[in-house]
Amino acid sequence: MSKRVVIIGAVALGPKVACRLRRLDPDVEITLVDRDSLISYGGCGIPYYVGGDVNDIEDLYKTSSHAIRDMAFFENAKGIKVLTRVEATEIDRKNNRIHFQHRDTGEKQILDYDKLVLATGASAIRPPFKGSDLPNVFTVSDLHDAKSIKTLMAQGKVGKALVIGAGAIGLEITEAMTDLWGIETTLVEMEDQVLPTLLGKCIARVAAKELENKGVELLLTEKVLEITQNTENGQLDVKTSAKTIGVDIVVLAAGVRPNTGLAYRAGIATGRSGGIVVDNRMRTEDPDIYAGGDCVEIRNLVSGENMLMALGSLANRQGRVIATNINGGQSHFKGTVGTFCVKIFDLAVCKAGLTYRQAKETGFDPVYAVVAQADHAHFYPNAELIYISLLADRKTRKILGIEAVGKNGDAVKARVDAVAVLLPYGVDVDGICGLEAGYAPPFASAMDVVNNAGNALDNVLAGKNRTIDAADFLHDFGHEKARVLDIRGAKEAAPFKEKYGERWLNIPQDQLRSRVSEISADESFYLLCDTGPRSYEAQVFLTSKGVANTLNIQGGYAMIKMIAPEFI
Amino acid sequence: MSKRVVIIGAVALGPKVACRLRRLDPDVEITLVDRDSLISYGGCGIPYYVGGDVNDIEDLYKTSSHAIRDMAFFENAKGIKVLTRVEATEIDRKNNRIHFQHRDTGEKQILDYDKLVLATGASAIRPPFKGSDLPNVFTVSDLHDAKSIKTLMAQGKVGKALVIGAGAIGLEITEAMTDLWGIETTLVEMEDQVLPTLLGKCIARVAAKELENKGVELLLTEKVLEITQNTENGQLDVKTSAKTIGVDIVVLAAGVRPNTGLAYRAGIATGRSGGIVVDNRMRTEDPDIYAGGDCVEIRNLVSGENMLMALGSLANRQGRVIATNINGGQSHFKGTVGTFCVKIFDLAVCKAGLTYRQAKETGFDPVYAVVAQADHAHFYPNAELIYISLLADRKTRKILGIEAVGKNGDAVKARVDAVAVLLPYGVDVDGICGLEAGYAPPFASAMDVVNNAGNALDNVLAGKNRTIDAADFLHDFGHEKARVLDIRGAKEAAPFKEKYGERWLNIPQDQLRSRVSEISADESFYLLCDTGPRSYEAQVFLTSKGVANTLNIQGGYAMIKMIAPEFI
Repeated sequence: MSKRVVIIGAVALGPKVACRLRRLDPDVEITLVDRDSLISYGGCGIPYYVGGDVNDIEDLYKTSSHAIRDMAFFENAKGIKVLTRVEATEIDRKNNRIHFQHRDTGEKQILDYDKLVLATGASAIRPPFKGSDLPNVFTVSDLHDAKSIKTLMAQGKVGKALVIGAGAIGLEITEAMTDLWGIETTLVEMEDQVLPTLLGKCIARVAAKELENKGVELLLTEKVLEITQNTENGQLDVKTSAKTIGVDIVVLAAGVRPNTGLAYRAGIATGRSGGIVVDNRMRTEDPDIYAGGDCVEIRNLVSGENMLMALGSLANRQGRVIATNINGGQSHFKGTVGTFCVKIFDLAVCKAGLTYRQAKETGFDPVYAVVAQADHAHFYPNAELIYISLLADRKTRKILGIEAVGKNGDAVKARVDAVAVLLPYGVDVDGICGLEAGYAPPFASAMDVVNNAGNALDNVLAGKNRTIDAADFLHDFGHEKARVLDIRGAKEAAPFKEKYGERWLNIPQDQLRSRVSEISADESFYLLCDTGPRSYEAQVFLTSKGVANTLNIQGGYAMIKMIAPEFI
Repeated sequence: MSKRVVIIGAVALGPKVACRLRRLDPDVEITLVDRDSLISYGGCGIPYYVGGDVNDIEDLYKTSSHAIRDMAFFENAKGIKVLTRVEATEIDRKNNRIHFQHRDTGEKQILDYDKLVLATGASAIRPPFKGSDLPNVFTVSDLHDAKSIKTLMAQGKVGKALVIGAGAIGLEITEAMTDLWGIETTLVEMEDQVLPTLLGKCIARVAAKELENKGVELLLTEKVLEITQNTENGQLDVKTSAKTIGVDIVVLAAGVRPNTGLAYRAGIATGRSGGIVVDNRMRTEDPDIYAGGDCVEIRNLVSGENMLMALGSLANRQGRVIATNINGGQSHFKGTVGTFCVKIFDLAVCKAGLTYRQAKETGFDPVYAVVAQADHAHFYPNAELIYISLLADRKTRKILGIEAVGKNGDAVKARVDAVAVLLPYGVDVDGICGLEAGYAPPFASAMDVVNNAGNALDNVLAGKNRTIDAADFLHDFGHEKARVLDIRGAKEAAPFKEKYGERWLNIPQDQLRSRVSEISADESFYLLCDTGPRSYEAQVFLTSKGVANTLNIQGGYAMIKMIAPEFI
């Protein structure tokens, strides 16, 4: 009798296990089970379907060669049996059997398995405030939600929307509604920044400003307390800690929770994060049961802590590992460094590793540098600035994280990926200075922005580059007496001198050596140039002349402009 | 007395050493010497200046904040002394002195040094055939050449051009002349492919086809024998091994040779490659003399052999290392993995590591896989195909190289860089399967093309995916009797069936299981799908049914279309 493999869950990981396993073993009997009718779809594409970048919902469950991935496709093209709208109710581990119930007919069914795969995914959290289950309060965890939201918008029934949670899905759905549909959208986030688990404050402020630039009302450090149906106008009244906002729909994007009920009832351990515990072959404690995708916890390779990370790319790679191991191979999934991308209107934000806060909480002594530089040679047309924040541990010099933002998404991704893939190897700052990424003027600078992020951090760690975060500068400049020493050209500095008067001193870089006597050694200065390297050079020079109390504004005016265009 | 550092050569590495050193030590006396009048320019930008992407030649020696990097700039902004049009004639190592001669006045000068840096660069090779020194036979090694060529074109004096050498500079200058100026250009290359030291045959054919598509006459396996001035029409007659071509200008792009005369006369060792030998602190055998940039040889970290690699990005990073070490620090430049990018009209080609040929010559047992897949999620708009060829050693499974081509240059670079930076760590195939690059639909597929390159190679190494290179298929299909089994849809296959008749069998993927009895187990087939994965799946299935003599065409029809659009 051929081996029987049952897979619970048929969205991302499940189908990957099934298809890979079939290619490894033409004889194994594979059954793929899902509680939904729609299977094997690109869940990450939902915001793009809602926003109209993807027109037809079928595109999300078509292959790249345009075949629809439905039951017949899996049966005919792959030799994989699929059961849909079937709920797995109980795992009988003793007898290697699993009990099911058909959701439409109530009919019960039992399948024997040699190996079982739990690919049960995660569900959107519905926060416990009153009204979170009202009609027109949606989550965006499956295609049905997506369809409902899009239908309402297409019918012209949505003028105003409110999104709860400024994580990745919250941002993507906010953009989707605002950009194509022109819906007035409010985004509410409890924490004091967008993408709080993903970004440090500086890059997060760039993202927040982009949302505001595109007309999104962004409410940070604000909680939704309740939602009520307004009986007069039919709208939903969303009461936050500060005010009440009337909207037509609410989208809950307050995170997801792994679906572990089935595993839990079978006595399979979950971890502190709430996800199913697996080893690095993706096996649960039961050697016949594998699990992967959004329902498991995985190791963060930078912090060493286990965590949840619901991402289709991880699920796909884990699926391949599981299939190889079921087939008797030895394949490992070691964990994640948290590599991540999100498009926010005209900007791309990419990151990997830990944020400053997370690094501190994990017990590191984190230090970071921010640089801004063109993605391509600065003399080559269409160069766009990339802003990178690079984080390392002071003592070991090991890289802990990288965050970057820019208009050219592929170019931003290139820089972050190059660092991300090195994180499992424990790369240090010198490794980033020496990183050998591809170069030619249409692709990069001779000293590329990612190398320069390493260089800047090297100088910071050496105590040579004494910096202030641009966000902190904007705060402190309003509260402290220190002046700005602007070493850009007179023309660039003129409007600032006009606005800030005495507090703005301008000595262009090429005059600094001859005019250094104008500067009092006792005074403190914030040093400003276009993007940071020249003010660092000025700082070194000034220090040698006894002007020691200077702070170099990280990312220079380029960064200030991104986070506070009103500064000038 | 403060330390005296003299730097010979002021294009890329020299200025980098000088500026970094100044930031590390405000007191060191730095003298930067060059035989030319123009210094600190982006030499890699020359083709883009010639082609018009960069309008003004000054843009190549301006900083990103628009300051012109001339003598006054280095003096005033950096505190660095510059001597131009000065030739270093002799190094007196015993007395730590260097002798100079001013090229305009003949005046001689001596400088004492504590540390000397040789940044003498490389010069274009003028091949030894007759006429290689005629007027209007140019190299493109400095800004003066670039200006002369551009001036001739702007004056309308160039209708036809011939470029010798299909290396990176040859391709870039070919594009520059063809694209903006509409010049009829012939590109002549001795070897049987373009970029012979950089690419394997498959990706090289993609590049060659792009050149031909844009109207370039490409002559491979052809040598220029002599150039003569045609007295009747004033043109240059270029005689190759096959024919004589009349053109208005010739550009020599037959490689560069390191400028090591000064070092040689001082008894400083050069290596087998012809470059100055340095240790990984970039010191020559003389502890007071450093060298870097195009005049040194560096270690190829994949092959272990020393090699020349003239690239501004390496020079910049080496410059930083040298400055740190001169200042008493400990910084290392370990070598190169040969990461490389070139834009060829609408295509971007990126690579790292060794080619198949180089890997064989070095003693590896190389195996490669080719995949074609969209750079972004296939359902996301504006997705473009990327073609990747990934090379590993059969026994150790270590990655030896990656080559990629596609329309979206930044996206191609992202994939190659992610592998390139791992090469010094000895990454193996499993490392590429598990590579954690950033994912979201606007940036990548859930199982990204670079992971799939690893997956495909893993399957090849496991003996499960038996492949044929698309280029080999095109050759063999004309010579062997084996038929194609096309598993695409009937509609896609129809024109091929019409053209190739009996030799083209079409059984769509989803009918293969039910129609397998139509296939004779004794017959041999080339298996074809859109991009490769489905034909691999078909191969596995057919093998299980006893149809064992099949070869999966790597990259599928997508690759055939790129290298032989005339196939259909």
